Parts: sequence; structure tokens; C-alpha cells
Amino acid sequence: MNDLIKEMFVRAFKNRYLEKLPDAASISWDTPTMAFTTDSYVVDPLFFPGGDIGKLAVCGTVNDLAVSGATPLYLSAGFIIEEGLKISVLKRIVQSMAAEAQKAGVKIVTGDTKVVPRGKADKLFINTAGVGCMHACVKEAFISDKIKNGDKILVNGHLGEHAIAILSARNEMHFESEVLSDCACLNGLLDKILQKHKRVCFMRDITRGGLATILCELASALELGLEIYEERVPVSTSVKGACDLLGYDPLYLANEGKVMIIADAAESEDILRTMQNHPLGEDARIIGEVVQDHPGMLICHTSIGSKRIVNMLSGEMLPRIC
Amino acid sequence: MNDLIKEMFVRAFKNRYLEKLPDAASISWDTPTMAFTTDSYVVDPLFFPGGDIGKLAVCGTVNDLAVSGATPLYLSAGFIIEEGLKISVLKRIVQSMAAEAQKAGVKIVTGDTKVVPRGKADKLFINTAGVGCMHACVKEAFISDKIKNGDKILVNGHLGEHAIAILSARNEMHFESEVLSDCACLNGLLDKILQKHKRVCFMRDITRGGLATILCELASALELGLEIYEERVPVSTSVKGACDLLGYDPLYLANEGKVMIIADAAESEDILRTMQNHPLGEDARIIGEVVQDHPGMLICHTSIGSKRIVNMLSGEMLPRIC
Repeated sequence: MNDLIKEMFVRAFKNRYLEKLPDAASISWDTPTMAFTTDSYVVDPLFFPGGDIGKLAVCGTVNDLAVSGATPLYLSAGFIIEEGLKISVLKRIVQSMAAEAQKAGVKIVTGDTKVVPRGKADKLFINTAGVGCMHACVKEAFISDKIKNGDKILVNGHLGEHAIAILSARNEMHFESEVLSDCACLNGLLDKILQKHKRVCFMRDITRGGLATILCELASALELGLEIYEERVPVSTSVKGACDLLGYDPLYLANEGKVMIIADAAESEDILRTMQNHPLGEDARIIGEVVQDHPGMLICHTSIGSKRIVNMLSGEMLPRIC
Repeated sequence: MNDLIKEMFVRAFKNRYLEKLPDAASISWDTPTMAFTTDSYVVDPLFFPGGDIGKLAVCGTVNDLAVSGATPLYLSAGFIIEEGLKISVLKRIVQSMAAEAQKAGVKIVTGDTKVVPRGKADKLFINTAGVGCMHACVKEAFISDKIKNGDKILVNGHLGEHAIAILSARNEMHFESEVLSDCACLNGLLDKILQKHKRVCFMRDITRGGLATILCELASALELGLEIYEERVPVSTSVKGACDLLGYDPLYLANEGKVMIIADAAESEDILRTMQNHPLGEDARIIGEVVQDHPGMLICHTSIGSKRIVNMLSGEMLPRIC
């Protein structure tokens, strides 16, 4: 079993680091600052429209590095496999990881597998950790300290697609939906932005809890307020339809290929254009701004002209979404 | 829940990288070669004589870096928690990780938690990934290419203690045993060896499958044979006793604080002394050598003067031992 898996991994992830299966990969390194991150993936089901747990495990960790201002380079992969998982299923997932890693320009250089008895895990969990080199212009990972009054808030596209895709894969919607997860590696888009523009103040990927959650968290760390305009927040017709029927607010829905950027107002239109010229940013928008009023608070201007306070979601809307 | 956990982690692992909870830790880096590794830990039970899953998750990954010839520096930690796990249990484990990390001189700089519904995982799984800087004298992770005829095989102490401690914690032995797991970070010992001695050819930590498994794997990668002497292999009286009663061979038992070193014969006695002068190497021995005969094969000289071929263990003797 273990040999089979090892062979499968080495073949799929094909790179010189894995060949001799050392205890650790040794990697040449020549940049002064490294970014290091990890995430475990426990999504249910393993396959969903637009992706699978393997693609997710690559994109999620690549995105955590990319939004920190780093170029993702190397990933580790740890698999916890429930006894009885079909090898063919594992193979599809591993190949999906390999394909996504190649697309994103990262190498999976070290890994581990553990098999637990039936009933002691749910089919498959994957952990990936990632290292990348920080962009010279960023130096330290983005932290909220650089954000100032008047800065603009941007997102790169339609919100909520990952959440709706997972709900539909779980047959919890009781109606047909053709929404695909937006699961994608954002490093190409973000590299382009950081190369061209010097006044990005903050970036974060919009995952569990949605845009509302990360903006509320951010507001609470600032002595400033945040305002967004509902009608500028990009949401596709299908996601809007599903939300209307199910009573969800797209601001709280999870994404796996979306980033929120805060940038200096003077450069925000240029950054928007750079985003819109990239396949993963075609539907990018400037959706709001940083204000002096109501520090610590996120306010949404609704489409009917009123204002509402947006609060943190308490509890998790959808468990095991990533 | 998530906030509680985050707070617990940030407080226990206390370092500037975690404070602002960025998506990735940014780390200054100034050595030319980095080692990168990962392992998931699914040990059952979570607590056992001499350790717990948290201590194991730190030691295991630290050791993977150390045996590759690197100084371990930074760890990530990913927790998959079954709903219903007591916070007090998690806290003990997190504190144990923090204590072990401090002892080993490594920082836990980035992390992630996922909670899955009851019955979808078994209490707690932990993944750690680690990065370290390669010793200047090693450059590339140890691979078997440097091993040559006449080299000596060393181990740093008594074998099999982790396996027997786990068996006893599971009440599978039906008799009392006071064997403690040897779970320990080996980086201090190995740093000392690599600083003083230049002719170490290969190192590997002796974990799942025991000494026999790693030596068989190694032999099969060489065009040389390996020979060990049963009576020189250090095994404590308690482990020997348990093995006699249960019919186990200590060569196949798992360890979590043991390393096998292959070194040039000319320097092997010096390396042995360095090991014996370190608390984690007091019972170190030279147990065998690399030979020209029977390439690809591991031969054991038994205590009654005969020779036997030692084969790879097929299947896993003890599941969920690490």
C-alpha cells in the first residue's frame, strides 16, 4: 500500500527533490525573506463542480503565500487516508494536485502518508505547507498597519461560487445549479499586481466566512472604518439566485480564488485595470473604501440607498467547506 | 471555538511571527540551502508513557530535518480536531508542543485548525512541516550515494521503546510495563556530531518499521551489503522482556528518538564517543558495517553465532504508532 502510494506521488509530482525520497528536501535559497504557511483540507465531498480536495490543497496554500506578498515556490503534502479509500480516487486527486501545482509554477517536494482504520477519518484529509520568497517591494508579510484613511477596497471577481458549488455537490440545495467553484491559484494575478504597482497596502484571500468576515476582522484591527457598496460587489446571477432562494448573504459565502486588496486611492484605478486584464480578474471591482468614521466597523451601503452594519458571522455557515 | 483555539496557540507558541496572524509567516533567511519536510501524526492514544501527540509532532519533524543534515528552525502546525474534543485536552497537547519546540530551539510560526463533525476524525490529528538550514558541510540532504564498503553502522541507544510504550498505553500487552517512549528531538545530538566530525555518510531516524526496515530499504538502494551483530544492538531489559513474551523482534519496533548513522570506519570510534557524551546517546553503539558481499541484503549475526537474512516487514506491525 505505502509503496504504491509513494510511487504514485513520485510519478505524479515528478521533480528531483522527491526522487530519492529523503527525509527532507534540500532546496537552494537565495532571497532574504521567506514566507511559510500551512493549511489542512477536510472538504466534503472530495469532488465538487470546479475542483476537488487536491486542487483545493494546492490553491489554498499557494494563495496564502501569494496574498502575503510572496512568490510561492515549494509545497509539502501530508495525506491522512481512511483505510478503504479507493486507489483510483486517490490517484485522481494526486493527479489533480500535480496539474494545479504545475499550472501555478510550484513544486511538491516533500510528503507523508498515514493510513488510519475505517471510521477513524472521513476518506481523505490533506495538509499542505508552502514556502515562497517575499517580493522585494513587500519585505514583511502584509499587515494591517499600512492601511490609511481614503484607501480603496478591491476584489477580483464574483463572490460565493465555491460555497454554492459545495452545497450543490452535497445535494443540499434541492435544485439544479451550474455554479463551479472558483478554486484557483492567484499567484499569477498577484505577482503581476505587485510587479507593476507599489501602493498595495494589504491583501487577503477571501475564504471561509466570506468577504464580510475578513473585512470585519480587518476593521476590528484598525482605528478606521470600512465601507462597501452592495451594488458594486460582484455576484453572478446564478449565485444571487441561489442566495435569494436559500436565504444566504453572498458576503458571507466562501471563495477559493478571490482576493481582497486594499490600495492607495491614487493607484486604485490602475490596479483595477491590471486585474481586469488578467483572466482571474476580469470581473474585478472597486467595492468600497477606508474611512475615518465609525472606527472598527464595517458599513454596507445597500442597493436601496440605506446603510447597514455588517457583523462577523458567529459559528460556521458551512462546515467542511475547505 | 476558533477564536479560543487561535488565542491558545498564539499564547502557547508565543513568537512575533504569530502575533498578527498573517496568512503566512515572513522569515529572514540567509543560508544558501534550506531543508523542507512534513509529517502527519495520527497516534492512538493521544497520550502515552513518555509523550503525547503534540511532543511527537514536534520531535518527528525536527528529527526529519536533523537527519537530513539541517538545523531545524521553524515549524508549521495544522490541527484537524474532531468536534467534541475537550479544550483541556487540546490545551495540554498544545503546551506540550510549545515546551518541546522551546527545548529543541525551533519556533512554531504558522498554523491552521479545522474542526470536523463527530465521527469524521479520531479526536485529533496534527501535521507539522518544518524548515531548517543545511549544515555547510552537508550541502545536499544525505543520500545513500556516499556510502562505501567498510563504513560502520551506529545507533544512539536502546531500540523499541516507543512501540512498547504505545502498546502498553493501549493495554494490548496484558501486563505492566514501565517503558517510556524515547520520543525526543535529536537535533542537539546531531548538530554536535556534524560540527565535530566530517565523515558522516548517511543518517536516518529509526521510526515506523524499526531499524530492520530502514536498513533493508537502504541495502536495496545500494550495490553493497549491510551486516549487523545482534548482541551489539542496544535493547533494554524491559523491552527485551516484552518482546520475548509477545513474540516481537526489537529490530522491527518503532522509535521516536533514535538515529542510525553510517560513517567512515576511521572516524566511527570518535563519533561514537561524541554520541556517548550526549544525554541522547549514552547507550550508543557501533552495531555493524557495510560490506562488499551479498549486495542489496541485510544480514544479522545472531547471538548464537549463526547468520540470518533480515527482510523487510510486510504490512504494518502496529498501526497508528506515530
